[in-house]
Amino acid sequence: MPQLPFGADEYAVRVRKTRQEMSARGLDAIFVTDPSNMAWLTGYDGWSFYVHQGVLLTLEGEPVWWGRAMDAIGAQRTTYLQHDNIVGYDDTYVQNPSKHPMETLVSMMADRGVVAGRIGFELDNYYFTAAAFMALQSGLKQADLVDVTGLVNWQRAVKSETEISYIRAAARIVEKMHTVVRETAEPGMRKNDLIADLYHASITGVDEYWGDYPAIVPMAPSGMDATAPHLSWDDSPLKTGESTFFEIAGAYRRYQCPQSRTLFLGKVPQKYIDAEKAVLEAVEAGLAQARPGNLCEDIATAFNGTLNKLGFEKDSRCGYAIGLSYPPDWGERTMSFRAGDKTVLEPGMTFHFMPALWLDDGGLEITEPILITETGAECLCTTPRELVIKD
Amino acid sequence: MPQLPFGADEYAVRVRKTRQEMSARGLDAIFVTDPSNMAWLTGYDGWSFYVHQGVLLTLEGEPVWWGRAMDAIGAQRTTYLQHDNIVGYDDTYVQNPSKHPMETLVSMMADRGVVAGRIGFELDNYYFTAAAFMALQSGLKQADLVDVTGLVNWQRAVKSETEISYIRAAARIVEKMHTVVRETAEPGMRKNDLIADLYHASITGVDEYWGDYPAIVPMAPSGMDATAPHLSWDDSPLKTGESTFFEIAGAYRRYQCPQSRTLFLGKVPQKYIDAEKAVLEAVEAGLAQARPGNLCEDIATAFNGTLNKLGFEKDSRCGYAIGLSYPPDWGERTMSFRAGDKTVLEPGMTFHFMPALWLDDGGLEITEPILITETGAECLCTTPRELVIKD
Repeated sequence: MPQLPFGADEYAVRVRKTRQEMSARGLDAIFVTDPSNMAWLTGYDGWSFYVHQGVLLTLEGEPVWWGRAMDAIGAQRTTYLQHDNIVGYDDTYVQNPSKHPMETLVSMMADRGVVAGRIGFELDNYYFTAAAFMALQSGLKQADLVDVTGLVNWQRAVKSETEISYIRAAARIVEKMHTVVRETAEPGMRKNDLIADLYHASITGVDEYWGDYPAIVPMAPSGMDATAPHLSWDDSPLKTGESTFFEIAGAYRRYQCPQSRTLFLGKVPQKYIDAEKAVLEAVEAGLAQARPGNLCEDIATAFNGTLNKLGFEKDSRCGYAIGLSYPPDWGERTMSFRAGDKTVLEPGMTFHFMPALWLDDGGLEITEPILITETGAECLCTTPRELVIKD
Repeated sequence: MPQLPFGADEYAVRVRKTRQEMSARGLDAIFVTDPSNMAWLTGYDGWSFYVHQGVLLTLEGEPVWWGRAMDAIGAQRTTYLQHDNIVGYDDTYVQNPSKHPMETLVSMMADRGVVAGRIGFELDNYYFTAAAFMALQSGLKQADLVDVTGLVNWQRAVKSETEISYIRAAARIVEKMHTVVRETAEPGMRKNDLIADLYHASITGVDEYWGDYPAIVPMAPSGMDATAPHLSWDDSPLKTGESTFFEIAGAYRRYQCPQSRTLFLGKVPQKYIDAEKAVLEAVEAGLAQARPGNLCEDIATAFNGTLNKLGFEKDSRCGYAIGLSYPPDWGERTMSFRAGDKTVLEPGMTFHFMPALWLDDGGLEITEPILITETGAECLCTTPRELVIKD
């Protein structure tokens, strides 16, 4: 039996919770392809999501891992599943347009009597393609195939003690990364050299917390490039008079703690001071609403109200749930801090409160990963909440 | 106009080649979601593939980038497209089950008169979900929606001079990474500390070649974990008497050069010496078949024949095409070295010749990225082709 990040009891609770929701929706089985859902239910941890794979869960018995034959060995090494509940398909199915791996999933399901009733698939998740669904529709003609995108993700919303301890470890790591930026960055330094230092800091980790890979690479655009989110880096030297934001995450045992800070080299223009002031006040206003019983949208309303009053605007969501994740997204893809999201906050939920501003000549990101407590919200990092200015 | 990795002429050739194939298949338009295809056609480079996005290409005019509004700025910064050919959708569509972003793609296509005829989608690509396709089927009732998975990937098979120069830069980087393993690894070293050094080496790069992020993180399992591919790392110390394989890549401007080597610490068992000998001979046999006019399967046949003669077996493919890539796969997802792949080799094609062996108590990976030349194959790296033994 391999060493897993959680005890057998915790996996059992997860499976039970998921089955309760399946029953409530009248589902006989679900097949989950989101790698974070696969890991959360079974422990499976491998970079194999570039081929078709998933976990089949019915209302009784163990989940069943299904994937490429060579990865079945990885499933034996990383899950609690009995080996006859780990099923691999032949390598000739890999990236071969003449046949689809899902044909073998249908056979496996038939072998286990899962061919009729209501069966759920994550229709809007990466790694569940249109072609996969079409192959399943052909193969499972007696079943009613329904959408369960997010079903398992929602079960993950309230974190256990152990999960929170992993996110706290990731928080230590991202704090260390921001310290590296603060101490190391200077005009003329090649951006990629700074990113190399950040990677080194994140993977060495902090004390006994070794660094795992984050679900998104560092995003660190400067100047006009920082008017856009989601650009990574090149070898351009850091420049005096420019801002650079560092949207980065620490990761521990696949749990993610993203946090952003912005660096300004040289004499900072008043506009950035004003934007910093507005964001900090708006963050305080948002955090004041972050408590059990309030809604996700309450945080957005308070944040945006304060921001607008101070002369700035943000038209995208200002936060999202975080936890266990694999590329390409460190978010949990359930709750968002935005108007209309009526999810009630509960203790144990974790979010990236992400009040990024993209200005006309640069970006300002000062963000906070938070944990909802019994009485309010706890910021998971101690990184100073400010625009980092190196004059 | 932003600085792109290729000149306008090269992008024009790519679009023309793609249109020729579209015409040959009677297609009026294609919508590509594979991030590497988006980048190859337009230059677009952003970590935004966790939301719905793509490039629409018809038989005339510029391609059109479509994605999340905040990423439209990134498209302005990284593509050659005129800004009215960059179309963003509202942030309220992001990860919101009550509406699907593809509804806005349908509107955009209607605005441009692309609502009928034969329209191709990459039905089996990550990032093109079943739900996306269903939304398009509802919205494009007059069109014939067909599968074009791999259509653009196949146009990328033969690399240009500039592309080859980028892969050569990535080759320098992965050589450097293997040198770090050879020089740094020792019993007792925490695995994550070694991985941190590898990341640092890869991102700092070599000379003027700055390191970009590889499309897969380092895979570096030891001992019994190395009987499985695709596991990453933790903080377990390297141990005497164990093998560890390092399946890693250098990357430059999103072009990937993967290469694997295996490290054995301590006195190496005869079995590993035998396996090394078999793999090296089989690699030579495979390389001898790697020349223009031969087929992809010829390499596999020669490799497997020699391997079997020497008492070892491998039942998965032993190579695949490489080039421009984004997570989750550094392969190009077209050609494979395996029985039945009748693709004719041409000068300018690049592959990862990947003859990994997974034994009963460990793994042995000694692999070669190669370029098909006018007369044969060139190994892109000078990394010594051997089992690395530190006794």
